[in-house]
Amino acid sequence: MNVLPVLAETLKAIVPPDPRYLDQARSRLDSLTKPLGSLGRLEPLAAQIYAIRSGAIQLPLKKAVYVFAADHGVTYEGVSAYPREVTAQMVQNFLNGGAAINVLARLHQADLTVVDVGVDAEFSAVAALHSAKVRYGSRNLLREPAMSDEELSSALEVGLHVAHMAQDRGQDLLAVGEMGIGNTTAASAITAMLTGQQVANVTGRGAGLDAAGRNTKLHIIRKALKRHFPDALTSPDPIDVLRCVGGLEIAAMTGFTLGAARYRKIIICDGFISTSAAALAYAITPQVKGYLIAGHCSEEPGHRHLLRYIGIPAILNLGMHLGEGTGAVLAMPLIESALRLYSEMATFASAGVSEAEA
Amino acid sequence: MNVLPVLAETLKAIVPPDPRYLDQARSRLDSLTKPLGSLGRLEPLAAQIYAIRSGAIQLPLKKAVYVFAADHGVTYEGVSAYPREVTAQMVQNFLNGGAAINVLARLHQADLTVVDVGVDAEFSAVAALHSAKVRYGSRNLLREPAMSDEELSSALEVGLHVAHMAQDRGQDLLAVGEMGIGNTTAASAITAMLTGQQVANVTGRGAGLDAAGRNTKLHIIRKALKRHFPDALTSPDPIDVLRCVGGLEIAAMTGFTLGAARYRKIIICDGFISTSAAALAYAITPQVKGYLIAGHCSEEPGHRHLLRYIGIPAILNLGMHLGEGTGAVLAMPLIESALRLYSEMATFASAGVSEAEA
Repeated sequence: MNVLPVLAETLKAIVPPDPRYLDQARSRLDSLTKPLGSLGRLEPLAAQIYAIRSGAIQLPLKKAVYVFAADHGVTYEGVSAYPREVTAQMVQNFLNGGAAINVLARLHQADLTVVDVGVDAEFSAVAALHSAKVRYGSRNLLREPAMSDEELSSALEVGLHVAHMAQDRGQDLLAVGEMGIGNTTAASAITAMLTGQQVANVTGRGAGLDAAGRNTKLHIIRKALKRHFPDALTSPDPIDVLRCVGGLEIAAMTGFTLGAARYRKIIICDGFISTSAAALAYAITPQVKGYLIAGHCSEEPGHRHLLRYIGIPAILNLGMHLGEGTGAVLAMPLIESALRLYSEMATFASAGVSEAEA
Repeated sequence: MNVLPVLAETLKAIVPPDPRYLDQARSRLDSLTKPLGSLGRLEPLAAQIYAIRSGAIQLPLKKAVYVFAADHGVTYEGVSAYPREVTAQMVQNFLNGGAAINVLARLHQADLTVVDVGVDAEFSAVAALHSAKVRYGSRNLLREPAMSDEELSSALEVGLHVAHMAQDRGQDLLAVGEMGIGNTTAASAITAMLTGQQVANVTGRGAGLDAAGRNTKLHIIRKALKRHFPDALTSPDPIDVLRCVGGLEIAAMTGFTLGAARYRKIIICDGFISTSAAALAYAITPQVKGYLIAGHCSEEPGHRHLLRYIGIPAILNLGMHLGEGTGAVLAMPLIESALRLYSEMATFASAGVSEAEA
């Protein structure tokens, strides 16, 4: 793999969580006043975070959601139910506090930052906006690579920098969201390349395409993949995949995921596009896996393939397909619940409760 | 059906939510700045609660969890992995604040009340305990009906009274939990009778039986059903089912569910046993259905059959099997999220966001 200079230092610094902490956590979980394993999925979740934090879980966790936004050149091919302008309109909606992610971030007390990596519009400076525009949208991936080498490096660097911001802000639990009309097209192309699935199996209706619209989208993805990857590859270079068929916000999320793993953050993947960035980070280095949590599994058909590819089970299955980090923030109270249970429940010994009969 | 005098007034007073509110809610949901239907399961959930509250959702909701506890005579047949004493020990754990439900109720700000309907022990009076003991455990359902007519009426009345307490306390969102060693045996027998499923399909390992223990449990349930219901019935009287193979806490939860529906509360079912009470309430009067929400689907194999019988989809699927109301309280932040999104999101018109192209 072609490791970009911008990633070199971060990749060297990522150390996976120590599996010995998983065993310690397992023992503690089995000592709590409940039938063995009866907290289900919350038990491995608590153990994973215990390992991420090297045995020192300080509650409450400081929560944040980062929403990476960019436009996509491929929107000129008619791959989306919504016009390209909606990316900028929704970013303005985020900055005004009216979108779904604003409501959820307020309710669940996650700090929201919108990162403009490449929206085709200008915004007034406000506290919640981090302006880091690389370009006014990615290039049209049907005609040329979505990013030049320099643009890709810049977008990755935006993500690394934002991870560093999260570290400076003392944030522990990070939801990774996005906004970008056209970005399910990019995510489907990435998913087909990484998982080896047929394009049709990993391409959905996005924000609301009809059957004809989805057929156009399928055709464009197949044509783009044939152009950029004319030879069938068993193990494509994830950096090439990202550069050719990704997008600026996807590249920034990939950098962010790598940077957040380097700082030992708990990283919650959101939907299909957010998880495509996590899958790219995982393809670049599997060392990130122990830091990744799948907040939910969306209705986009490619999402479950990406989760299987990385090997992380989803916490929520609510049939959502909204993006913005919404599924990731919705998982936060469950993650906090797992940690509180782990930390605060009485043990059989401390509570004087009889254990199961052998 | 043999309507008991104790239920007569409540059954007359239950009015289902008006379906016109569901249509109103649907229109509002489709006007919010998100792709149509993209909040998945949260959308019908918000609409259901909008209908329950007749269009007047006041936030924040006042949340509560009621944990109904009782012992079971059938424990003397060896149907549980834990000794009978654990019911009382866990009730004491609840009163001391060390159990899973205490941790979750604290985190999610639900008032916890433990209702002693029939635990085989005495407890010191504390604020969180509501003492309403009908008997020191139900009778052994293998040998005789689990409750006499009078005991059943008293246990139902406990539940009706606790629903009235919730009304007096101004609580809106009610989680229904339980504790009772041996109570999955009762719930499996109820489930087999209500759903017509084979006993083996609706009987699991409870709190941790091995394969031999589960076989004993199957044998006892089959024998008990043959004793009490020698003729195959296509539509058994739910009151008879409850009296013969139920339990004191299950009867109280059934009364509570009916009473809470009468007061137009949002009722969150927890696991297999809590849902068996909801299913009995539904069998007594289908008018309760619009008030019921399934917090989660547990690992107990009968649970999904009960949810299908009532016709309510589960919010969470976390592989839990703990009871106590834990799965119901874990669903609370998701229910609150659905309501906040419904109430606080901007519309396409208010935010100036373009809608999907036709």
